[in-house]
Amino acid sequence: MKARIGILGSTGYTGVVLTSILIKHPNVEITYLSSEQHPDKYYYEIYPNFYDTFKEKCKLINAKEIARACDVVFFATPNGFSSEFIPKLLKENNDLKIIDLSADLRLENSLNIKKKADAKNIKITYGLPEVHRKDIQYSQIIANPGCYPTSAILGLYPALKKKIINIHSIIIDSKSGISGAGKGLKPELHFCEANESFTPYNLAGKHRHIPEIENELSKMTSANVKVAFSPHLLPINRGIISTIYADLTDKTLNQNEINKIFSDFYKNDFFVKVLPEGIYANTKNVRYTNFCHLSVLKDERINKLIIVSAIDNMVKGASGQAIQNMNIILSFKEHLGLDSLGQIP
Amino acid sequence: MKARIGILGSTGYTGVVLTSILIKHPNVEITYLSSEQHPDKYYYEIYPNFYDTFKEKCKLINAKEIARACDVVFFATPNGFSSEFIPKLLKENNDLKIIDLSADLRLENSLNIKKKADAKNIKITYGLPEVHRKDIQYSQIIANPGCYPTSAILGLYPALKKKIINIHSIIIDSKSGISGAGKGLKPELHFCEANESFTPYNLAGKHRHIPEIENELSKMTSANVKVAFSPHLLPINRGIISTIYADLTDKTLNQNEINKIFSDFYKNDFFVKVLPEGIYANTKNVRYTNFCHLSVLKDERINKLIIVSAIDNMVKGASGQAIQNMNIILSFKEHLGLDSLGQIP
Amino acid sequence: MKARIGILGSTGYTGVVLTSILIKHPNVEITYLSSEQHPDKYYYEIYPNFYDTFKEKCKLINAKEIARACDVVFFATPNGFSSEFIPKLLKENNDLKIIDLSADLRLENSLNIKKKADAKNIKITYGLPEVHRKDIQYSQIIANPGCYPTSAILGLYPALKKKIINIHSIIIDSKSGISGAGKGLKPELHFCEANESFTPYNLAGKHRHIPEIENELSKMTSANVKVAFSPHLLPINRGIISTIYADLTDKTLNQNEINKIFSDFYKNDFFVKVLPEGIYANTKNVRYTNFCHLSVLKDERINKLIIVSAIDNMVKGASGQAIQNMNIILSFKEHLGLDSLGQIP
Amino acid sequence: MKARIGILGSTGYTGVVLTSILIKHPNVEITYLSSEQHPDKYYYEIYPNFYDTFKEKCKLINAKEIARACDVVFFATPNGFSSEFIPKLLKENNDLKIIDLSADLRLENSLNIKKKADAKNIKITYGLPEVHRKDIQYSQIIANPGCYPTSAILGLYPALKKKIINIHSIIIDSKSGISGAGKGLKPELHFCEANESFTPYNLAGKHRHIPEIENELSKMTSANVKVAFSPHLLPINRGIISTIYADLTDKTLNQNEINKIFSDFYKNDFFVKVLPEGIYANTKNVRYTNFCHLSVLKDERINKLIIVSAIDNMVKGASGQAIQNMNIILSFKEHLGLDSLGQIP
Repeated sequence: MKARIGILGSTGYTGVVLTSILIKHPNVEITYLSSEQHPDKYYYEIYPNFYDTFKEKCKLINAKEIARACDVVFFATPNGFSSEFIPKLLKENNDLKIIDLSADLRLENSLNIKKKADAKNIKITYGLPEVHRKDIQYSQIIANPGCYPTSAILGLYPALKKKIINIHSIIIDSKSGISGAGKGLKPELHFCEANESFTPYNLAGKHRHIPEIENELSKMTSANVKVAFSPHLLPINRGIISTIYADLTDKTLNQNEINKIFSDFYKNDFFVKVLPEGIYANTKNVRYTNFCHLSVLKDERINKLIIVSAIDNMVKGASGQAIQNMNIILSFKEHLGLDSLGQIP
Repeated sequence: MKARIGILGSTGYTGVVLTSILIKHPNVEITYLSSEQHPDKYYYEIYPNFYDTFKEKCKLINAKEIARACDVVFFATPNGFSSEFIPKLLKENNDLKIIDLSADLRLENSLNIKKKADAKNIKITYGLPEVHRKDIQYSQIIANPGCYPTSAILGLYPALKKKIINIHSIIIDSKSGISGAGKGLKPELHFCEANESFTPYNLAGKHRHIPEIENELSKMTSANVKVAFSPHLLPINRGIISTIYADLTDKTLNQNEINKIFSDFYKNDFFVKVLPEGIYANTKNVRYTNFCHLSVLKDERINKLIIVSAIDNMVKGASGQAIQNMNIILSFKEHLGLDSLGQIP
Repeated sequence: MKARIGILGSTGYTGVVLTSILIKHPNVEITYLSSEQHPDKYYYEIYPNFYDTFKEKCKLINAKEIARACDVVFFATPNGFSSEFIPKLLKENNDLKIIDLSADLRLENSLNIKKKADAKNIKITYGLPEVHRKDIQYSQIIANPGCYPTSAILGLYPALKKKIINIHSIIIDSKSGISGAGKGLKPELHFCEANESFTPYNLAGKHRHIPEIENELSKMTSANVKVAFSPHLLPINRGIISTIYADLTDKTLNQNEINKIFSDFYKNDFFVKVLPEGIYANTKNVRYTNFCHLSVLKDERINKLIIVSAIDNMVKGASGQAIQNMNIILSFKEHLGLDSLGQIP
Repeated sequence: MKARIGILGSTGYTGVVLTSILIKHPNVEITYLSSEQHPDKYYYEIYPNFYDTFKEKCKLINAKEIARACDVVFFATPNGFSSEFIPKLLKENNDLKIIDLSADLRLENSLNIKKKADAKNIKITYGLPEVHRKDIQYSQIIANPGCYPTSAILGLYPALKKKIINIHSIIIDSKSGISGAGKGLKPELHFCEANESFTPYNLAGKHRHIPEIENELSKMTSANVKVAFSPHLLPINRGIISTIYADLTDKTLNQNEINKIFSDFYKNDFFVKVLPEGIYANTKNVRYTNFCHLSVLKDERINKLIIVSAIDNMVKGASGQAIQNMNIILSFKEHLGLDSLGQIP
């Protein structure tokens, strides 16, 4: 019997990527698609690539109906919605599994939600499987990570756990494709404004992903980690590169040893690939995949570690990772439905 | 038992799209990848999106080995090669199925090949399944159509068979993404030259796809069809739009009737979708898919039929269609391994 | 003494291109910049490329002030505004020269305006200088042509005046960069929607530029010309290519003769260049210039003339042509301030 | 009398940008254009944007002819050429002014050249006017800076001279448009490879611009400065952003004070603009201009200075700066012919 899936906010960008992947997933069926903007429209009217092959209609959000129709509910809704709506939903069906792609549950509001739901035994986990796989497995609610945090944390995780870098020296310079800003209309997302340009934004500690990154890095190291984080807007649809800098604690560590530390660390993680020397991680090679490609380099001259972390912001950075979390919760193979190797050229 | 597949010219653009699709095809296994440019390299060294998941190496072309290792051989080689090499290959194994993505066999050189191979019973068919499905089924060699011809012929086929247009009035204005020009280095394909520009080329009867288009349209109508055909280079990786103009023979035919003629005509063709009014065919919605989207419009004011035909030049325009042909030859379901719905955004 | 210039709607795309060119024009000074969206802001706050070199502020539209501050007023305002506002403005100052980049005055509402303004002697001309230069010179109000019409009419003008094509066979297949759709936010202009795609729109007689094109072509030929016109959205910031098809009336006319007809026709028009054989008109080579590049080809096989017309939709297709009109009205050299040769790469 | 200009390597990208700007420069005339690849071709055959307005032909390089025809010679030639050819040229005419856009003279080979030329009094200066204006004025030969070094050094100069950052903490994360890689054909510059991707290269101390950057920063501080420098390839034609990180030496310095330090420092430098808070430096706003836009931010949380430096790699990063140097040498106004404010949209 297939797991029955609801996607709330299904016509936004994370929604359509969820839908695209889940349509082909062998163990699930989509039973509820919500869209507050396009209720009662066929999904293919919004996304004509589905024309004549996917015949579902969008509905308005209705807690009772969702609770009845679904086993797992994905929230691809704007920030602020899920923390209000999850308690109502759990009242209707206390067994629902929930995967929230918004930012609502990533920090410490989980407590708040538990209270509202009067559900003391509900386990909420930050859904970065490579870090929290075991907790995810036994959780009912997953706070799916942000795109920048996913790229940054996966790059830094081995270095921090293996204590090869100074935790007070971390600089994360990130570049994201435009889909990371969502489907909503904003002046800076107009084609003529974004095309043929490259621009930083929210510099110097202002981006809302910083607490999420620092929270995870701090837990990892049992320290109070602060990072420099600079996001930039890249004129491509999909992809994030984070170029990460940190001081090596041990000068004698050489390039091969560093590569081995990273490769060994991730040897059981299907979706993280540490590239051999000579191949640089870039956005093209992870586009439309759930992989994270890492290049790890020692700059001998200045004793710094440089980590390049590449993901597709819509897949490993959002909807693909959400499905990876679903697979873990439902005890499916972790990469089920997520085995795309991308599209070149 | 899986069909064993060889891909010659596997590191060019049609080669890598063949490889990408066939890796995931449930009924086949890739047993031979040739690359004259990168012999002995791991495939992932050329295309790092395959790193650590696809571990094959490229080989030089060797007729004996190919004949032994394969049941089906795809030629993704430059024009001029297959017509020379197929006879040698058939000498080694006269049962091999061959699908040739180059232009060599699309016109009348098939005869020539048969002679060379001393193979009087070898059936060669122009592999546009929507037109020649029955012949393809019983063929050993498939001449896989060009990208522009596929988009143009699929657009015109219903109108010509149903005789609703004047066959002497056809104008095909086509726009192709850059991958159609292949992976070889040419000045006009340098990023800075192609980007932020749009340029016609080979106008006024000079493009080598014209005989292929006219050949098929003429056979279809038992007439000597000549067309205006104008190709243009579009600064995107993938996609062709052909905007096709022709005079309607019957002025009284209305928009709904025309739509119905096209929809009925293609109702058994999984990969051709006649879009409802209000949705225009565009490249984005067929990207990474084997679909052909058609918009069909009557311009009442001037009594013209306007057909917009959209395909992904690398999939339905080349490698996807080749695999569709393979599926037909091998009596698989026609869309096996070809059910991608694309990637938005 | 410099001519004093007002730009209404100065922060839209045609507005900023007017501003950019007029800042460098030796014979004028900008004395009024209106912006309903950004009143009281420094112009550089909207367009930081002007930071610290152009220090004007935007104002709200005020008829009295404009009439006092300006000799020439450019309307870069949304359709519907100028036809209402020009009469008010002329009441304040009946000598103002007006160049209207909106569509309001391009067809027959001129009469209406004259009435409202009680200004019987005000001459309004459709401002395509290559066609109406003499009338423009003695006009007070210029209806500046649309971008598609400019590209189409300049391509067809010699062929129609020299009667070498059948006027009932004209097909105009046009492709425009995204800036042609303006700066306003619309779903189809979101970077991720327009990028890496190509889409037709308003096909089969629906585009509002068709009456404008047909009106001019009909006057030119003293006939009732109808055309097929298909616009498409091209993922570049700037540029229009119109690929135009028509039947030649005289089969014996050869390529050289056709080229000579076009070259001779435009030999006194600085901004129209008929390219030699072997160089195709494309958008890149006219970008940021007021030039129109034409390639003219005979398709011998089918006796058709194919004309490729390339302009920058923002310059010759809008703001540059408006300034060309201003130069003519004010008896400046026609290309003053408009001598940019573009920017490659 | 106008200065007579030779451009060697005129058909490469830095060559065509030199040509484009110098054609419009009021005080010079181009008297020699060399192209080893296209000798005897009209310049417009290579760059059709010049068709019918610029009628020069390309010649092969000939020392005697150049020496006779020119007062100033720009070398837009591949690395390795100028250091060999300048001595020969100076033998023919010892008064020639030379501006070398290649990397040959940027480090310490100047000595070598002087010897070869037997020209003991020839002054060679690294041509970053904001740093070395006075020396440039009295130099005969200018080593025009690289694009990355220009962006990095202009960003760091005030901070280092005013001693507000720790010189051992500098990290430069740079992103460059594709034209920075030149016009030559390379696999990674194929449209389909560069488009819709973003990739780092030459990481961890491997880029040839590092010695140039460190050389200048070291002279500036009388110290041995080492930097982390990471270049990335950005899918746009033009523009560099360098995002620069360094530790502040004085924690009490606030954002306003830092902004004032930078603004005051550059108040007499026409081409460097320190942007007010709220406007981020990006590539779009400096495209086609000789400006460098700087955003300077304090990250209070971690006591770091973040400097964003934006230039057009082809103008301030190459040909525009070369002309700025020419203006200084020839005692013209420094911004003569260089007053473009860019092109938006």
